[in-house]
Amino acid sequence: MKLFAAALAAVSVSAPQDDRGSARRESVAPPAVHAVAPPLATYTDDVLFGDVWERPQLNKRDRSFVTIAALIATGGVEQMPGHFDRAIDNGVTPSELSGVITHLAFYAGWPRAMSAVGVANRILEKRGLTPVQTPDARLAFDRVADAPRAHAVTGGVGPVAPALAAYTNEVLFEDLWLRTDLSPRDRSLATLVALTANGQAEQIGFHLDRALDNGLTRVEVGETLTHLAFYAGWPRAMSAVNAVDVVYRRRDEAAR
Amino acid sequence: MKLFAAALAAVSVSAPQDDRGSARRESVAPPAVHAVAPPLATYTDDVLFGDVWERPQLNKRDRSFVTIAALIATGGVEQMPGHFDRAIDNGVTPSELSGVITHLAFYAGWPRAMSAVGVANRILEKRGLTPVQTPDARLAFDRVADAPRAHAVTGGVGPVAPALAAYTNEVLFEDLWLRTDLSPRDRSLATLVALTANGQAEQIGFHLDRALDNGLTRVEVGETLTHLAFYAGWPRAMSAVNAVDVVYRRRDEAAR
Amino acid sequence: MKLFAAALAAVSVSAPQDDRGSARRESVAPPAVHAVAPPLATYTDDVLFGDVWERPQLNKRDRSFVTIAALIATGGVEQMPGHFDRAIDNGVTPSELSGVITHLAFYAGWPRAMSAVGVANRILEKRGLTPVQTPDARLAFDRVADAPRAHAVTGGVGPVAPALAAYTNEVLFEDLWLRTDLSPRDRSLATLVALTANGQAEQIGFHLDRALDNGLTRVEVGETLTHLAFYAGWPRAMSAVNAVDVVYRRRDEAAR
Repeated sequence: MKLFAAALAAVSVSAPQDDRGSARRESVAPPAVHAVAPPLATYTDDVLFGDVWERPQLNKRDRSFVTIAALIATGGVEQMPGHFDRAIDNGVTPSELSGVITHLAFYAGWPRAMSAVGVANRILEKRGLTPVQTPDARLAFDRVADAPRAHAVTGGVGPVAPALAAYTNEVLFEDLWLRTDLSPRDRSLATLVALTANGQAEQIGFHLDRALDNGLTRVEVGETLTHLAFYAGWPRAMSAVNAVDVVYRRRDEAAR
Repeated sequence: MKLFAAALAAVSVSAPQDDRGSARRESVAPPAVHAVAPPLATYTDDVLFGDVWERPQLNKRDRSFVTIAALIATGGVEQMPGHFDRAIDNGVTPSELSGVITHLAFYAGWPRAMSAVGVANRILEKRGLTPVQTPDARLAFDRVADAPRAHAVTGGVGPVAPALAAYTNEVLFEDLWLRTDLSPRDRSLATLVALTANGQAEQIGFHLDRALDNGLTRVEVGETLTHLAFYAGWPRAMSAVNAVDVVYRRRDEAAR
Repeated sequence: MKLFAAALAAVSVSAPQDDRGSARRESVAPPAVHAVAPPLATYTDDVLFGDVWERPQLNKRDRSFVTIAALIATGGVEQMPGHFDRAIDNGVTPSELSGVITHLAFYAGWPRAMSAVGVANRILEKRGLTPVQTPDARLAFDRVADAPRAHAVTGGVGPVAPALAAYTNEVLFEDLWLRTDLSPRDRSLATLVALTANGQAEQIGFHLDRALDNGLTRVEVGETLTHLAFYAGWPRAMSAVNAVDVVYRRRDEAAR
């Protein structure tokens, strides 16, 4: 597997002010990156945007969704405007942008969601877009299927923090997860991103099972972790790989 | 335990520009939240402020103290002005605001404290307030009671990082923890918040024991973790619950 | 070991606006710190800058390098201008500043690197400096010595995230780590800082071995963790100490 050696060897750092007619392509890296860290500009143009974003194993809409979820979860406010715009260009709808912010209020905390709201508001206004809201729409709640999870929370969390157990069951799993502004698969994807990007690998197990049950494929999971190596750092991705591997082995064992 | 179902079902999203006379109450969620993510505005008004903040198991002064500690520890600069103001309204004194920033310089790092100082300075100036300082005041230091902890640090940290062991014993435990701008209970509470909000659950054990010894109750701990689920995200709170549970089991076992 | 007791006892909080002729020395803490939290100003002047930064076990150039790596890795944008300036004064070259930003794009994520680029660009422009770039220069790659690591990544990461395994081997270890804008020792140091400051202690083992092999001494590691206690918080440093201790014990055992 020699994906990049040729590309990296062949490329010389392209100046962003090059005559556009002669430039092989425009640089994605902003001028400041070319000025301060030309190698980083090369990695940005040739590896991240020239290669990672072009990998078909995760489409661009999903890569944008993963990117904005990572930025919201980690408080990457400065990078939000560009990536929120790109996400809409790549097919993330205003309602999905709205939905992922709401979802991550719970999975990364209110302050991170509130900072994202300000940026999203400016981007949507600039583009004349409004999230389509159907506030009362909910997927059907399958209380029987949910019972083991609810029981585990009541028994495991309740003795330490009874209100937290109640909010988990009643607000998160009987309300938030049933909202229709995000598909269950995207909700699981956003959760996986938040856990990986914020270094909570120890909670990936439960949510990865749920993600796979909600239709996320193993190929997409692998590409999501690869994408997150660039947007949340290699160490976060590597710790998540280990947690994911444990789940796969358990599921494969159970399938035998 | 059905805390929210009724409330959530009964509430329609209230516009923040409603005629004040007719509005049931004013929305806490800012206009941008209503524009971008109406469901998040509903959760903010009905669950977070309508329910969590009203729970009497942790009073509003303590909830404000927990909230500002979480914002300082995680670098939530954009949310600080509103919550610093609210904290003072809820009875956190200027000296306590000053004290928690100093404490978290050590427990979340100087950069986070320095960012908080700028905001606190603006809020205190705006309100014409000054922290009352008694720089030489210290609680009595009980060297005998502290000896096992100091010994553990010298033996466990010293061989790897001798200066870190020395600073821990001499600056943190023989000086910072004895300052009178925060009560020992509040100092423990701020530490518990920092460990939870920054995902260092593996260090909760020592500090939870200390917190309980300093007068924080188990009910307050449970409510603090519940509150932090909203201000630092569900995963952080859930990992802390597990660490707290281990301590309770050990203490209950020892009490038998 | 009584490093600070005397200093702390002797020092009264110095006002930053003191007549410079009579001031023992100027305060490093900005005026807002003196206004909001005088004890924090004292700790800043007497412990952090008066003691920690003066410890000869890690020189000031290295302390600046560790500080800016921590700020980049954790997104401490507000503190970057002052510390980037100080780093250049302390002997960190523009090329090293450039190199550490590029390195941390991979070890803390692109968004953190991009935020640092903006600040670095302003500082370098202000000082009329430009990083010296030798884009094609690489250290020799020792494929045989690297084989066990590459094999472990292919076998351990490949089944979950094949592209991540390929990028790790081909972009990180066959390209980034061979660049000459940072010495291998500084590259290891920056990696150790990122893992510690972002709470990924579970990945310190591999990189500490590499750091020691690249010439970082145990004394410097201990001082780095001490320094990071102040710049990333005590809990991060303490968790790293445990991980480092495990490595030392293994190496000492193997050396017997």
